[in-house]
Amino acid sequence: MSPQATTMQPHTDAVPEEQVMAGFPPAPEMRVGPTNWFKLPWLRWSLIHRSLSVPTVDVWRGNAEPSALPSGAALYGATMVSGPEGTKVGLDQALAQLEIDAFMVLHRGKVVFERYLHGMAPHLRHGSASISKSYLGIVTGMLAGEGKLDLTATAETYVPEMRGSAMGSATLQQLLDMRAGIVRPGLDDRPSALGAQDGGVFEVLGLLPRRPESPGDFYDFVLRKPAAGRHGERLYYDNGQPEALAWVLRRVTGRSIAELMSTYLFQPMSTERDGFYSVDKTGAEFSSGGLSLTLRDLARFGETIRGNGFFNGRQIIPEAVLADIRAGGDKALFAESRFAAAYPGGSYRNYFYLSHDHLQGISAQGRYGQRLYVSPAADVVIAHFGAAPGQSPHPFEVPYARLHREIAELLMG
Amino acid sequence: MSPQATTMQPHTDAVPEEQVMAGFPPAPEMRVGPTNWFKLPWLRWSLIHRSLSVPTVDVWRGNAEPSALPSGAALYGATMVSGPEGTKVGLDQALAQLEIDAFMVLHRGKVVFERYLHGMAPHLRHGSASISKSYLGIVTGMLAGEGKLDLTATAETYVPEMRGSAMGSATLQQLLDMRAGIVRPGLDDRPSALGAQDGGVFEVLGLLPRRPESPGDFYDFVLRKPAAGRHGERLYYDNGQPEALAWVLRRVTGRSIAELMSTYLFQPMSTERDGFYSVDKTGAEFSSGGLSLTLRDLARFGETIRGNGFFNGRQIIPEAVLADIRAGGDKALFAESRFAAAYPGGSYRNYFYLSHDHLQGISAQGRYGQRLYVSPAADVVIAHFGAAPGQSPHPFEVPYARLHREIAELLMG
Repeated sequence: MSPQATTMQPHTDAVPEEQVMAGFPPAPEMRVGPTNWFKLPWLRWSLIHRSLSVPTVDVWRGNAEPSALPSGAALYGATMVSGPEGTKVGLDQALAQLEIDAFMVLHRGKVVFERYLHGMAPHLRHGSASISKSYLGIVTGMLAGEGKLDLTATAETYVPEMRGSAMGSATLQQLLDMRAGIVRPGLDDRPSALGAQDGGVFEVLGLLPRRPESPGDFYDFVLRKPAAGRHGERLYYDNGQPEALAWVLRRVTGRSIAELMSTYLFQPMSTERDGFYSVDKTGAEFSSGGLSLTLRDLARFGETIRGNGFFNGRQIIPEAVLADIRAGGDKALFAESRFAAAYPGGSYRNYFYLSHDHLQGISAQGRYGQRLYVSPAADVVIAHFGAAPGQSPHPFEVPYARLHREIAELLMG
Repeated sequence: MSPQATTMQPHTDAVPEEQVMAGFPPAPEMRVGPTNWFKLPWLRWSLIHRSLSVPTVDVWRGNAEPSALPSGAALYGATMVSGPEGTKVGLDQALAQLEIDAFMVLHRGKVVFERYLHGMAPHLRHGSASISKSYLGIVTGMLAGEGKLDLTATAETYVPEMRGSAMGSATLQQLLDMRAGIVRPGLDDRPSALGAQDGGVFEVLGLLPRRPESPGDFYDFVLRKPAAGRHGERLYYDNGQPEALAWVLRRVTGRSIAELMSTYLFQPMSTERDGFYSVDKTGAEFSSGGLSLTLRDLARFGETIRGNGFFNGRQIIPEAVLADIRAGGDKALFAESRFAAAYPGGSYRNYFYLSHDHLQGISAQGRYGQRLYVSPAADVVIAHFGAAPGQSPHPFEVPYARLHREIAELLMG
């Protein structure tokens, strides 16, 4: 880290973030719990220290030495980029305005910029939110490549309990592309501080108080999704679809999602630290949003994607898995979705966002400012974690995507 | 591992342990929760996978390569030792009869025996129960050696909130030696499956259902301990005393117990994996019993003690800290305690048990069969984890101690 990082202005809130969970014991109003974790400043602490709030399962990195992430010629904190309003500011200032906790840029495999802010540090594991889905998408592709899954088969072929449920008759590929015909139960029916969007998963984890009608675990969560329309007709982003897919993966392999991630990605990549998932009472991972990991380990995943699956001296992800993603999804459906603003002309495939522009952007995205952006054309990987509260569509979605493009273009030269 | 391990008879219960938390989802009666985790076969799974039941905080190992634990000439599974009844059986048979999950013997720094049973594995982190106290005792000694703590000062000197509470007027050394004048609240007043002994800590963690009068966190747990008698007069083993000491350590250093363990022990020892602690709602560690770690990392701690604090190429624990422990505690008080049966002529000091025999045994002990035994005279370290349900005094206390002595004498030759 360069000295600039320490001279940045701290984020200011009515409640100083340094006081959150500080002291032994912390002041009652400074503790993180079900009534405040989704608001600043408590949100940051909650995302950076998720294991202290909920049960978790580790994603073992193995015993090998961490793979190398060499340093290269640097970007600077003063490099001019677009801030959230579109006006040009220094990169460090943009990160502060965009509620970023950690930010890393690699060019041609070398780290050219790395910042940790707001109590985040290289060894801490930040919640990645829906970037978890992209990890799941890759491992699903790898299992299909091994012949263990047929992506054209329906979910109920593998999990008979799903027969008669909204997603049981969807194919695995439809679940990968958010094209099963379902609606979110509870959407707009609960005036919670989170706006109820995806409240179900947080109730399963105990992060929000449970109601009598709350699902008891992620299996129950999947089975309760109401059907709406026909499969394939819409891009309807929802946690239910990856959770249904996770159930299929567990059933077919006899292994937990954490074990699969360890075997297929974390061990081969020789990550710096273990990752971990939030889990429900049955031990099932919050596969659509519960993976926590270090920034550098997220960057390693990006480097593996940039290298067509080759990283750490070996082919980790088969090229075909990434070729399928890069070919993209249905552009017409994407254009109708709320994601088109940040990715005009883009598409969605296997839980990745494709830019289909001259930068060939491949992106994994999670709520609160979690992003992985890979530009094979510019040889650039950008990874960041944030703590921007609020719902999708979030006002930072367009600014994040613009910042990624600007940095990639700058480095492509 | 030698082939013997796989040919051993599995532990038999009415409910097969392989079915605990097996399947996606697991059968309701096979799930681990507040009503069954303390009974076999659920106890084993609960001890081996504690992070899936409660919030936790990691003890970071750092980024260095794991320190070496070389292999040496082997003990054998057929080596004759005393089983629980005192009759001679093969070592592997003894381990099965003594509900052992993992067992390791080092002689002159080399691993001469290593077994993983009942679903335990080298990379899994088993609950160490009260061995956690011994880690706390060592770090307390290290902080005192740096002049950050005065062990002759009272707890309330450092934590003013403890003024007027039963342990506030006890010295840190009295807390280290279990000699504060307190009684266990709730002992025998609750007919729980755990016999209520130390029920308070499990209620704090949510491992047992909370009652209206349950302490809310570990600070509250400490403050509620009722006084009984005068400090120094008895050896009264209780979780309150190390929990009070942990509060002092946090307040004085401004750091969590997990951070202290990482800085003072796990990073210098270059453990194979991170450890982790169960935590309460305030993020406070269950310092008296909540540390989970791998068997090999427990063995590394033992090797460090055997080497007078020197391990991994450096002096990790100052010699004076270990000399103080080896000198022992009050033998007369120990003789009156329930521990004298396993350690006749022994004593207790800084959360370690001293044998004061020709083997110079130093032992850390935890419920359910967790043990670290170090014999500097025999150059032997024995580490094991178990899942023997029940209360102290446990019928296996004497057999475990006897087994340690027999192995040490065998290797001393």
